[in-house]
Amino acid sequence: MIRPVVIRPVVIREVGLRDGLQMLAAGPTTGQKQAWIDAERAAGLREMEVCSFVPAALMPQFADAADIVRYARGVEGLAVTALAPNLKGAQLAAEAGVDKINFVISVSESHNLANVRRTPRESIGQLREIVAMLASLPADRRPGIDVGLSTAFGCSIEGRVDPEATLRLAEEVAAAGVDGITIADTVGYADPIAVAGLSAAMLERFADLPIAIHLHDTRGLALANAFSAYQAGIRIFDGSLGGLGGCPHAPGATGNVAIEDLIFMFELMGVDTGIDLARLLVARSAVAAMLPPGALGGQLARAGLPKTMRVAS
Amino acid sequence: MIRPVVIRPVVIREVGLRDGLQMLAAGPTTGQKQAWIDAERAAGLREMEVCSFVPAALMPQFADAADIVRYARGVEGLAVTALAPNLKGAQLAAEAGVDKINFVISVSESHNLANVRRTPRESIGQLREIVAMLASLPADRRPGIDVGLSTAFGCSIEGRVDPEATLRLAEEVAAAGVDGITIADTVGYADPIAVAGLSAAMLERFADLPIAIHLHDTRGLALANAFSAYQAGIRIFDGSLGGLGGCPHAPGATGNVAIEDLIFMFELMGVDTGIDLARLLVARSAVAAMLPPGALGGQLARAGLPKTMRVAS
Repeated sequence: MIRPVVIRPVVIREVGLRDGLQMLAAGPTTGQKQAWIDAERAAGLREMEVCSFVPAALMPQFADAADIVRYARGVEGLAVTALAPNLKGAQLAAEAGVDKINFVISVSESHNLANVRRTPRESIGQLREIVAMLASLPADRRPGIDVGLSTAFGCSIEGRVDPEATLRLAEEVAAAGVDGITIADTVGYADPIAVAGLSAAMLERFADLPIAIHLHDTRGLALANAFSAYQAGIRIFDGSLGGLGGCPHAPGATGNVAIEDLIFMFELMGVDTGIDLARLLVARSAVAAMLPPGALGGQLARAGLPKTMRVAS
Repeated sequence: MIRPVVIRPVVIREVGLRDGLQMLAAGPTTGQKQAWIDAERAAGLREMEVCSFVPAALMPQFADAADIVRYARGVEGLAVTALAPNLKGAQLAAEAGVDKINFVISVSESHNLANVRRTPRESIGQLREIVAMLASLPADRRPGIDVGLSTAFGCSIEGRVDPEATLRLAEEVAAAGVDGITIADTVGYADPIAVAGLSAAMLERFADLPIAIHLHDTRGLALANAFSAYQAGIRIFDGSLGGLGGCPHAPGATGNVAIEDLIFMFELMGVDTGIDLARLLVARSAVAAMLPPGALGGQLARAGLPKTMRVAS
């Protein structure tokens, strides 16, 4: 049997503290969020999107955003990201000291309007303002900026999205001067062949930019899509513990890919993620206790690690 | 964007009436099983494993095996398969008039002993007796025989299985004179790279035999594995409605790949399965009503078809 010899490692980013919690009416306490970060860092995670800088009146679960960023910055070896929906949020995120800001634009105009009450074109304008604001900061206090292209494959409102539309928007985003682009299957329209095509096109056109993928498991295809993206050359993947998440403007969107299932797939394939699955399942149990019953899903936690992978390293 | 132009169709086989029901203490009534077969045939399914010829004292849910086969034979355009664990079962299946017998041997000796109280070598002996018995039948009443290689990737008792062991057993099975071989990930040890390797090796070594794959979703990798098998050239896939199933000798094995999710993946990729997903979801609702609450899983039924695929064709 021939197995591939050259396998490059992957980066797995936890987004549950932001993308997961935005669906919950009441989030964990600040202390619980800190314990969550610690537990996943102990399992080997090195990058986490820890909050969203939105008005507390809109999303009270992120009222402690600045505190959480300050705490996370103190955790050794952790890259700290936060979502900023607009210039104001980006300023607050930069002040709090994030390593990277995540700004999101939907390829689908209807979804972008529902999500941030702007057209994608208006969002590009906002992105340029954010980039200019960041450029005005001293280099040692200047976070990076990554842009997520939501509904990159399809949208509950408009249906399937033309990959050329995603690529056109990506060109505008890249031209604005960003540090990375994430293609996001926000509501489960991606399939492995579409993922292979868009991933390859993105990697080819933006050879100098890190290209990541953010997959939801709405209709069960997240891991198949992740494998396809990996084959196409994508090396940066989002996920959330227990698949926590969804989208308030996409009915039926049932969460991110479960990060433990994603990591399990890579580890079983022999792709080193640097993450200890046994410890990650311990972290998952701790987080499950902070959330409403049944909030976390995923298959690995249900079945447990296979016999050959049970010992924590 | 470039999408593959030449995409060959796939065959999807329903195994829920056998592999699914063997885990249930009490199965649906004979009439309900008939309605199940009709509903899935109406959705476009063309091959079903409808029962197991085991002693009714052991598995009362299959006491009506011969009746079910007779009924299924009358359904136009349906290929009817039944599991036979031994020579006696194969004789009964042939008498009932199946199109094909499914005989199973585990690559893992421990699993084979637990499942049929024979070593894999003894099972090969039994297979040869079945093939000889079938050869003695008149050609117009002679079913085909397919052999499933269980635990082809790993086993809860022995851990990961060496693919060379699977290939060696496959050689013996092929030499016995069979009409097809199915590699089965009985308990969720397969990963997409292992699937690619074993699938390619099987297709190369047994170029004249149909090679199928039977995937369980124990740890969430079933669709990723199915996509990888498809890429490697596998064109025959098992599944069960709502992922019904498991394995009595594999604790934690949580069911087959949900056939509706599998078909959804192929259809979304543009691979024609000949199956109408809207009608399949209707069949799933009908079958759910025959089973204990929560017996069926799968993601598509939870989220519903995407906007662009909602109209039954």
